Amino acid sequence: MKFIIEALKRVRERRPLVHNITNFVVMNTTANALLALGASPVMAHAEEELEEMIRLADAVVINIGTLDSGWRRSMVKATEIANELGKPIVLDPVGAGATKFRTRVSLEILSRGVDVLKGNFGEISALLGEEGKTRGVDSLEYGEEEAKKLTMNAAREFNTTVAVTGAVDYVSDGRRTFAVYNGHELLGRVTGTGCMVAALTGAFVAVTEPLKATTSALVTFGIAAEKAYEEAKYPGSFHVKLYDWLYRINENVIRTYAKVREVEL
Amino acid sequence: MKFIIEALKRVRERRPLVHNITNFVVMNTTANALLALGASPVMAHAEEELEEMIRLADAVVINIGTLDSGWRRSMVKATEIANELGKPIVLDPVGAGATKFRTRVSLEILSRGVDVLKGNFGEISALLGEEGKTRGVDSLEYGEEEAKKLTMNAAREFNTTVAVTGAVDYVSDGRRTFAVYNGHELLGRVTGTGCMVAALTGAFVAVTEPLKATTSALVTFGIAAEKAYEEAKYPGSFHVKLYDWLYRINENVIRTYAKVREVEL
Amino acid sequence: MKFIIEALKRVRERRPLVHNITNFVVMNTTANALLALGASPVMAHAEEELEEMIRLADAVVINIGTLDSGWRRSMVKATEIANELGKPIVLDPVGAGATKFRTRVSLEILSRGVDVLKGNFGEISALLGEEGKTRGVDSLEYGEEEAKKLTMNAAREFNTTVAVTGAVDYVSDGRRTFAVYNGHELLGRVTGTGCMVAALTGAFVAVTEPLKATTSALVTFGIAAEKAYEEAKYPGSFHVKLYDWLYRINENVIRTYAKVREVEL
Repeated sequence: MKFIIEALKRVRERRPLVHNITNFVVMNTTANALLALGASPVMAHAEEELEEMIRLADAVVINIGTLDSGWRRSMVKATEIANELGKPIVLDPVGAGATKFRTRVSLEILSRGVDVLKGNFGEISALLGEEGKTRGVDSLEYGEEEAKKLTMNAAREFNTTVAVTGAVDYVSDGRRTFAVYNGHELLGRVTGTGCMVAALTGAFVAVTEPLKATTSALVTFGIAAEKAYEEAKYPGSFHVKLYDWLYRINENVIRTYAKVREVEL
Repeated sequence: MKFIIEALKRVRERRPLVHNITNFVVMNTTANALLALGASPVMAHAEEELEEMIRLADAVVINIGTLDSGWRRSMVKATEIANELGKPIVLDPVGAGATKFRTRVSLEILSRGVDVLKGNFGEISALLGEEGKTRGVDSLEYGEEEAKKLTMNAAREFNTTVAVTGAVDYVSDGRRTFAVYNGHELLGRVTGTGCMVAALTGAFVAVTEPLKATTSALVTFGIAAEKAYEEAKYPGSFHVKLYDWLYRINENVIRTYAKVREVEL
Repeated sequence: MKFIIEALKRVRERRPLVHNITNFVVMNTTANALLALGASPVMAHAEEELEEMIRLADAVVINIGTLDSGWRRSMVKATEIANELGKPIVLDPVGAGATKFRTRVSLEILSRGVDVLKGNFGEISALLGEEGKTRGVDSLEYGEEEAKKLTMNAAREFNTTVAVTGAVDYVSDGRRTFAVYNGHELLGRVTGTGCMVAALTGAFVAVTEPLKATTSALVTFGIAAEKAYEEAKYPGSFHVKLYDWLYRINENVIRTYAKVREVEL
């Protein structure tokens, strides 16, 4: 858990600029999550300015939640530029598997190379060509062993760090795998909480390597949710407290509440 | 009021997937309203994926609040697909009457067939060809008798269920008409609360017929607003509590607070 | 401070309709800020309806935060229409200087004529052709004397009212200059608070002349932030209280808390 504390410290010292090309639903809330944590968000999608913006940025987060053909072009181009410039890229393939368009564009972005791929069970399954595991943007039921295997398989197949989020979150770079037990089910009653994790991963991957960055984002966000729930049992108030706790979370809170361990397949 | 309790119970059991093609202002807040109530939102507008998404969905909600020509195409196409697939459609013609473009596109969507049309007095008047009753996206003053008549006239003219929202909300399918007295004036100080009602109507119309569904949405939302106001007298806090109460509302709360009755013309 | 009290009173009496062509991140929050204060927001960008919408509006606010070529066209066209119709225009050149595209489009809009230009130090510097003072959408460090001079220089160069926001905000029409000391640093942890000021300036400029309107918006918003912070020390809760205080702020609160004075260069 030391690496999480160290990563959070660096985010707060360096205030990484995280460039998001994300969906309309969560533009406000992911920007607020980044600001609350201590990072600096920018949202920009115009092809005219992508290169300049990515040059300024410390990481790029791509989220296909309200994809269309114009945004697809920006996302693919941003991925190419970020790779050329050596900026880390996080992909959140929201709704992959729900439609062929989303699956195809996610694979197109993945093929350009990303540093972190984060999705739920259905989305990551769909990218591996496994059908019928998504309902809209939600996953169908599955077992923990399945999720762990899926994470490792995807990490190897796509040769990147993969997180599969769920009741337990798994993160693997194909060699090492972490299981994160933090979080709260009320997150499922607030839109875009998965997108917030992707955005926060952008902040962490600007300051540390992908496996540790993704695990740090999941633990930090999961603890913030647990602490928020201590203060607010209903989704509106809980949502508000989530930002409060992304701001308040610190070394002590992480030390006390982090529930993460390395797992073997 | 039994049918409202029954409808809410079904929403929570079935968690209907509500596909929204809505405006940028309310994408986040309508998704949160649906999640708080117990439904499952998806926002998607790309023509490439409309058919697949609507196949997955239990209802479609179309809201023209930040309309442009690209979104118009998606909305018209979605309406056609939803009708082909037999999925219920809710139309919120935000700002109809304020501009000819909005009036025309609303009528274009209506002509494809919708299951519920929900608007304020000015918007529904404009769709019936009555001019000069809108100011931006707000209605000008009118009397209750006028509103009731307008609701029935529109229901007959468009051969669908129509809700005209205001201090009192009226819902009619051209045969039966309900008046809903729940709600709170502080809703006027939070953006997109009318859009939330349309989104929630999408959840209810996935589980019951349009007249009951729309009435259920209006009563449920109106009570949530009243309960929220008991806890918070100012718009920021009130807005937060609104989600809390969409989550907390239950049979007992509805039984105690519902103010709805069938009216004759 | 009398003029601020008078301006707020007029906003609440007249409920000006403020037409926003703004960025995706803040559409919801700026609409809520306007509603909380007592104004009436409308968000619309389709070229088909710009003229009709602006005819209805009392002021137009243009914010380039998530600019692209389609939105650029709408913004330039809206500026031209608003000028023709004599409606006051506020420009928030978010991220000018971060990319050439944003600088160029801001200047293009400015060249059509705006009534208020509001930006941070880096943005306004960039519009005056001074390079290297922006990081993403944030400003780099600078001194108060520099900020004051920049404000006056920009006001003269662009022949309009200019606000440069920061720890102290400066507002100048090239003849008179005000310094506003209200505000709170936690505003930096909530996205779009600068955009809210621009939106509120739209409400005030509908009821009074630009120098007073902009100063009124900055003072009102700054006090709301200070009062919000008295009730909430963390960004999620603080954000909520901000709307509460835009609603609650009144003559007495302004009289007690306003920290504004006219300054000489």
